[in-house]
Amino acid sequence: MRAATSAGSVSQDPADLTAARADRSGWPSPAPPAVVVRAAGVDDVRAVLRLAHEYRVPVVPRGAGTGLAGGAVAGPGELVLSLERMNRIRELSPADMIAVVEPGVRAAELDQAAAAHGLRYAPDPASHDISTLGGNIATNAGGLRCAKYGVTREAVLGLDVVLPGGDLLRTGRRTVKGVTGYDLTALLVGSEGTLGVVVAAALRLQPIPPGQPATVAAYFRDAHAAAAAAGAVLAAGVTPALLELLDARFLAALDAWRGTDLRARGQALLLAQTDGSGAEADADRLAAAIREHATVVEISTDPASADELLAARRLALPAIERLGRPLIEDVAVPRSRLADMVEAIARIGERHDVVVAALAHAADGNLHPIFVVDPAEAVAGTGTGTGQGGAELGGAVLDPGAPQVPEAVWRAADEVFTTALEMGGTLTGEHGVGLLKRRWVAAELGDGSVDLQRRLRAVFDPRGILNRGKVLPDPVSTAAV
Amino acid sequence: MRAATSAGSVSQDPADLTAARADRSGWPSPAPPAVVVRAAGVDDVRAVLRLAHEYRVPVVPRGAGTGLAGGAVAGPGELVLSLERMNRIRELSPADMIAVVEPGVRAAELDQAAAAHGLRYAPDPASHDISTLGGNIATNAGGLRCAKYGVTREAVLGLDVVLPGGDLLRTGRRTVKGVTGYDLTALLVGSEGTLGVVVAAALRLQPIPPGQPATVAAYFRDAHAAAAAAGAVLAAGVTPALLELLDARFLAALDAWRGTDLRARGQALLLAQTDGSGAEADADRLAAAIREHATVVEISTDPASADELLAARRLALPAIERLGRPLIEDVAVPRSRLADMVEAIARIGERHDVVVAALAHAADGNLHPIFVVDPAEAVAGTGTGTGQGGAELGGAVLDPGAPQVPEAVWRAADEVFTTALEMGGTLTGEHGVGLLKRRWVAAELGDGSVDLQRRLRAVFDPRGILNRGKVLPDPVSTAAV
Repeated sequence: MRAATSAGSVSQDPADLTAARADRSGWPSPAPPAVVVRAAGVDDVRAVLRLAHEYRVPVVPRGAGTGLAGGAVAGPGELVLSLERMNRIRELSPADMIAVVEPGVRAAELDQAAAAHGLRYAPDPASHDISTLGGNIATNAGGLRCAKYGVTREAVLGLDVVLPGGDLLRTGRRTVKGVTGYDLTALLVGSEGTLGVVVAAALRLQPIPPGQPATVAAYFRDAHAAAAAAGAVLAAGVTPALLELLDARFLAALDAWRGTDLRARGQALLLAQTDGSGAEADADRLAAAIREHATVVEISTDPASADELLAARRLALPAIERLGRPLIEDVAVPRSRLADMVEAIARIGERHDVVVAALAHAADGNLHPIFVVDPAEAVAGTGTGTGQGGAELGGAVLDPGAPQVPEAVWRAADEVFTTALEMGGTLTGEHGVGLLKRRWVAAELGDGSVDLQRRLRAVFDPRGILNRGKVLPDPVSTAAV
Repeated sequence: MRAATSAGSVSQDPADLTAARADRSGWPSPAPPAVVVRAAGVDDVRAVLRLAHEYRVPVVPRGAGTGLAGGAVAGPGELVLSLERMNRIRELSPADMIAVVEPGVRAAELDQAAAAHGLRYAPDPASHDISTLGGNIATNAGGLRCAKYGVTREAVLGLDVVLPGGDLLRTGRRTVKGVTGYDLTALLVGSEGTLGVVVAAALRLQPIPPGQPATVAAYFRDAHAAAAAAGAVLAAGVTPALLELLDARFLAALDAWRGTDLRARGQALLLAQTDGSGAEADADRLAAAIREHATVVEISTDPASADELLAARRLALPAIERLGRPLIEDVAVPRSRLADMVEAIARIGERHDVVVAALAHAADGNLHPIFVVDPAEAVAGTGTGTGQGGAELGGAVLDPGAPQVPEAVWRAADEVFTTALEMGGTLTGEHGVGLLKRRWVAAELGDGSVDLQRRLRAVFDPRGILNRGKVLPDPVSTAAV
């Protein structure tokens, strides 16, 4: 039970402290933080960062705690600065097509509020029902429709940020374009709470595309054929609003759970959606481009049957959760290496005797290998088929007291990261580095870049109080505080 | 005459030095720089920046010199580092949908090379035939189709950058998505050569939309009606590939030159293009949305008559050039203030007795007030109607020896900038700050942000050798070197 605390309140309730040890990364901190402060407004944030700077108290900014890389995990001696109560949509201007929000607003809430004006907030991380916009900004979250409509960075026009010491920095603007000075907005997006604490954001809204989307489901003999088809879609000049690839492991899990026969149709599934006035024409074009690669192609422009086609994607995570606790990873490779990466993930799983399934945002080469942790003990109460957006890709909430992720899984994950880098890819397409991937960062960026980034960080946070030890291997360890 | 110099060569030819005094901003330096070094490759750039750092020589990186804000203008004691000879497209990968280019490649060249694979480079500044990609990256150039397809920042996936001291920094990646570490790529895009020198860029290519675009030309009784129509287009869920607004002054100049009767149809013109599989349906939707605001609406899906409709936009600058030397400005305002800004520009012109016309990228609130300098002496040889992209919006090449821009024009420009800021807008939507807008920067950003940006700059360039005095009001003056 959480104590009923007042706005702007300070808590040392053991339940609050324990909750702040974990997120959804499977990487809890070794022990609880010292205190949780729930900010009710900008002044609270300023007061906390003024004092924390003065007294060198390490601060972990935190939203809903749904991160997948340990970016909001807090440990001994740390102050958790919760932004969840700053959850107002301050302004929604249809004429300017922007919204100004506080960091605790959920992406789906904003999207719904915008829908009343025929607008939407385009970035749609699968966690959009449960994750906060502050966290989406901190990780530069992607989503299903980002290949066509852009990731979070493209939607953020300006930020209000409190810096260590308590100063308020305003970046960017309310206009769609603008190039006065350096792009601090883009520097802050994806900085995982290490440079400042976002207290407001001006976000770009987009018109909802007219008409009904068209949906295509296609099955393939293997991931190579599916990836080739994904390439053929783009080569045909179609930019789908959604292009998702599910591997054989996912199809098997769905069949086992739902009694379907997806694997009779193929060993890999590609789900595509086109939208806008040309949705049907684009879907036909898309289907024509992939037909030679596919074993089965199904197409729909009617919402009910489209929903059926998309069920496989919607239920993919719940299906895997029936096999055990999922640990959701995130790498990206150049588009041409997509099939190689899907196959590498399967091979790595076999080699380490770990259950791993792969799904990919195929239009942008972003893959989510899902490791099944504790396969023996399937998690009770999941797999109910409700397909809630958050539960779907957000992954199970990892109780910090749950069994540790087995070493074999981390070894397999290590090999996945290394392989992605060898293919010219990146450690993380949309989840962030957090604590989880710190030790591979220098391999991707190079020591010179890491050093430069450390010095940039010091400009914002000279005493290193913000999210210490996250993102960059930090010369100051938490233990030394 | 320029001396025939070898690759990687050093020139003190007076013609080279004089040329480097100016760009297209109307803001030449008071006297020529000391030397021009033409880099033939990365090693040349590294050698120059190693020595310049060591001996504290101020360096001005320069491409084609087509900038509109004085960002590549060089003065006494400065070394001009020309990147124009580094003009190879190193790689063009249709499978990965990326190109790797050197900074001296022109945007239009890359676009043409990509077209052979059904792809294109989306950012299309009107100067794309003459400006270099290095300069486009330095200014985060926009263009006509950027409201739908993104500005330069959205197209840049990774950069190779030489830092003062000669170190090579690699940022970003070859993948579409990626969030490892801070977004240095975005920080460097738009930094106007003040943080490092770009020697290679991995750029995203996009599929060419299928089918023919549809074109709509609509006339309105005034700019307010035209701006209301632009808003109605977006509210109708249509994202046009192009949405350009021309004011009455432009229409008058076109009529006077071409013998047309555009002004009989209205006092403001909105040109729109829709593209992709839904181009015709979107054009119909768009026309329906604007009809109530318009006096005349014309629509075409056939290339020849579409070209006729677009002629007004294509010939707008040449028409103005017949009136005198154009000085092209660049501000952006929130979409809802577009009409107010168009009217403010006309009013400011009248108050200062200066000829000024306004065109706008109406979908993103980015306006170009075009001041006519020396209206008495129309520039010979312009207005030939060739409508070359570069000549069109690039503006006339300003001979450093040409008469100075009159004080009344700068006073009017000052008022335009101030008004844009008062409307919640920005000093520059796509041209950059350079030298031209330095003195308004603090008014937009605030002193705290300017100070922070100075400190970030010092991380990259601790001795302040790169493009000294540009973008941010610089504490070290060139004179002190």
